[in-house]
Amino acid sequence: MKVAGTWRRSIELADDRRSVRVLDQRQLPHAVAWISLTTLDDAATAIRDMTVRGAPLIGVTAAYGVALALAADPDGLARACDVLAATRPTAINLMAALAEMQAALAGVARGDRADAAFAHAAKLCDDDVAICEAIGRHGLALIRDAAAGTSRPINVLTHCNAGWLATVDRGTALAPIYSAHEAGIPIHVWVDETRPRNQGLLTAWELAQHGVPHTLIADNAGGHLMQRGQVDLCLVGTDRTTRTGDVCNKIGTYLKALAAREAGIPFYVAAPSPSIDWTLTRGADIPIEERGGDELRMVGGVQIIPAATPVANPAFDITPAALVTKIITERGAVAPAQLAELFGR
Amino acid sequence: MKVAGTWRRSIELADDRRSVRVLDQRQLPHAVAWISLTTLDDAATAIRDMTVRGAPLIGVTAAYGVALALAADPDGLARACDVLAATRPTAINLMAALAEMQAALAGVARGDRADAAFAHAAKLCDDDVAICEAIGRHGLALIRDAAAGTSRPINVLTHCNAGWLATVDRGTALAPIYSAHEAGIPIHVWVDETRPRNQGLLTAWELAQHGVPHTLIADNAGGHLMQRGQVDLCLVGTDRTTRTGDVCNKIGTYLKALAAREAGIPFYVAAPSPSIDWTLTRGADIPIEERGGDELRMVGGVQIIPAATPVANPAFDITPAALVTKIITERGAVAPAQLAELFGR
Repeated sequence: MKVAGTWRRSIELADDRRSVRVLDQRQLPHAVAWISLTTLDDAATAIRDMTVRGAPLIGVTAAYGVALALAADPDGLARACDVLAATRPTAINLMAALAEMQAALAGVARGDRADAAFAHAAKLCDDDVAICEAIGRHGLALIRDAAAGTSRPINVLTHCNAGWLATVDRGTALAPIYSAHEAGIPIHVWVDETRPRNQGLLTAWELAQHGVPHTLIADNAGGHLMQRGQVDLCLVGTDRTTRTGDVCNKIGTYLKALAAREAGIPFYVAAPSPSIDWTLTRGADIPIEERGGDELRMVGGVQIIPAATPVANPAFDITPAALVTKIITERGAVAPAQLAELFGR
Repeated sequence: MKVAGTWRRSIELADDRRSVRVLDQRQLPHAVAWISLTTLDDAATAIRDMTVRGAPLIGVTAAYGVALALAADPDGLARACDVLAATRPTAINLMAALAEMQAALAGVARGDRADAAFAHAAKLCDDDVAICEAIGRHGLALIRDAAAGTSRPINVLTHCNAGWLATVDRGTALAPIYSAHEAGIPIHVWVDETRPRNQGLLTAWELAQHGVPHTLIADNAGGHLMQRGQVDLCLVGTDRTTRTGDVCNKIGTYLKALAAREAGIPFYVAAPSPSIDWTLTRGADIPIEERGGDELRMVGGVQIIPAATPVANPAFDITPAALVTKIITERGAVAPAQLAELFGR
């Protein structure tokens, strides 16, 4: 995706080939600051404090975290995986990436481990880009369907950020939107603010960089817009989806899915296969991360909620498969009930 | 309700009996600032810029605005009503209060108009208190039902602020909660933050002043809490309700009503009769105020959304009667279909 006119990935190997650069997403959209990750702790901290976020980007950042650890200590694989696995509990990509790294490094000679780890992390990045491009193609077909017979812009509502910033390139939920925009289909995106961390600002920033028309709204507004016919389809990402199609995504996703069903609007979930947990059949079994109250209390460096006010901050919710029209994967877009069959699982 | 230990009304006639005091709600919960309204323009500005807000409080503030206008110009009734009616479009209490004032002042001699207007505004305040007390009694019965057979706290989810600060005393949606708390029923309130204006902070402040346990949450969290069985009932206010029971309330209310139905949780609306629009049968006919984008952009004096980002800010939405379990009025709590009959309309 373009940043200031130049196509870049959201995570890049530095010229020294022993460190990686990521955008500090906590500073966006107010400042575009690339920071360098040079150690395991850098990578773990970046994931934990949400310098980087988004399930796919968390996965590849963890993969590079393993590589950074092995560059410092060729025997540090197990410890690195432990440290990284403990950073965020909900996104399955993190665990999948660590498992992939462990498999790729099994049997590699001590002296070759760091090189092998960097190479495999780079491969995971390329894989992610390929997945997102495929999701973009399959999702584009759904947007084309919505656009058939009309010349007005197609209104898409999205929640949180499942874009370039959440992946290595193009995004998951935003990939079809970029593809539609590039294909000349008029499109307009309603961007949920996504309290408490306001990732909608990341989405609005991305869309603006790429020239896609959009409007930021309070999370409360989506139901009203759907009631009034101002939304053609919803399109969101996922942090973990069960084999049965129950979708865990950013808190508040479920409310939009209810409103979409009520209004007869398709509710699409872009789910790269590494975010699908084939071991689970019930969304209720996905652990929901409870994050610190300061995420609610502090906005833009200002404390808006008094310290004495108790707060709760569940970070994700579960949208049952029954509310999901189609799941868009790199292999195609299918109803939740066909998901396992699509992947032969 | 108690403020710093002393029972006060949210709007009070000053000792000079020719001005009124209100709390500047824009400064809460960070500062408790009583300000004086001495002219028609003071009252209109206070309503328009949301120094005061909440349908019932808007109504009585407008009534006092008429009195302030007549104290300056005994022939200023028509102009005062025009100015005040233009401040906020959605809450019907505003129009009802102005109509009441016009009726009360019809035929009053020029020299007596200001006194008559202040007297009638005071009566409207007393009426509002009586209505809220009655809503508190009827709503208490519903909370008692929920508490029957359990000793754990009853979890109530509320949206926006329909409390003491939105009325003259006790509130509408919060009146049953205060009554339950005073009756010794253990109760805990999930308080929606209520973006973009964060009126949940007002609710949390009120509840804290009165000693009611509560937890502030992002608007996105309520669906998840209902899915997980952590909410026993929803209880909200209304800015305007049709005779058929379609409920216009703060944007986001509708999403919570959908989640409540899905989870089998009662969804109660506290509706004082002055907020019922007997002329309307369809919620879609209620005008929805679109407020300025700075309400989203600015939080606590800090600009969190860049000026270049387009925003939309619809302030209310419609919860269809089919999603409302009971409407709690000063005459009792009934299903939406019984509302008109309850009032013989």
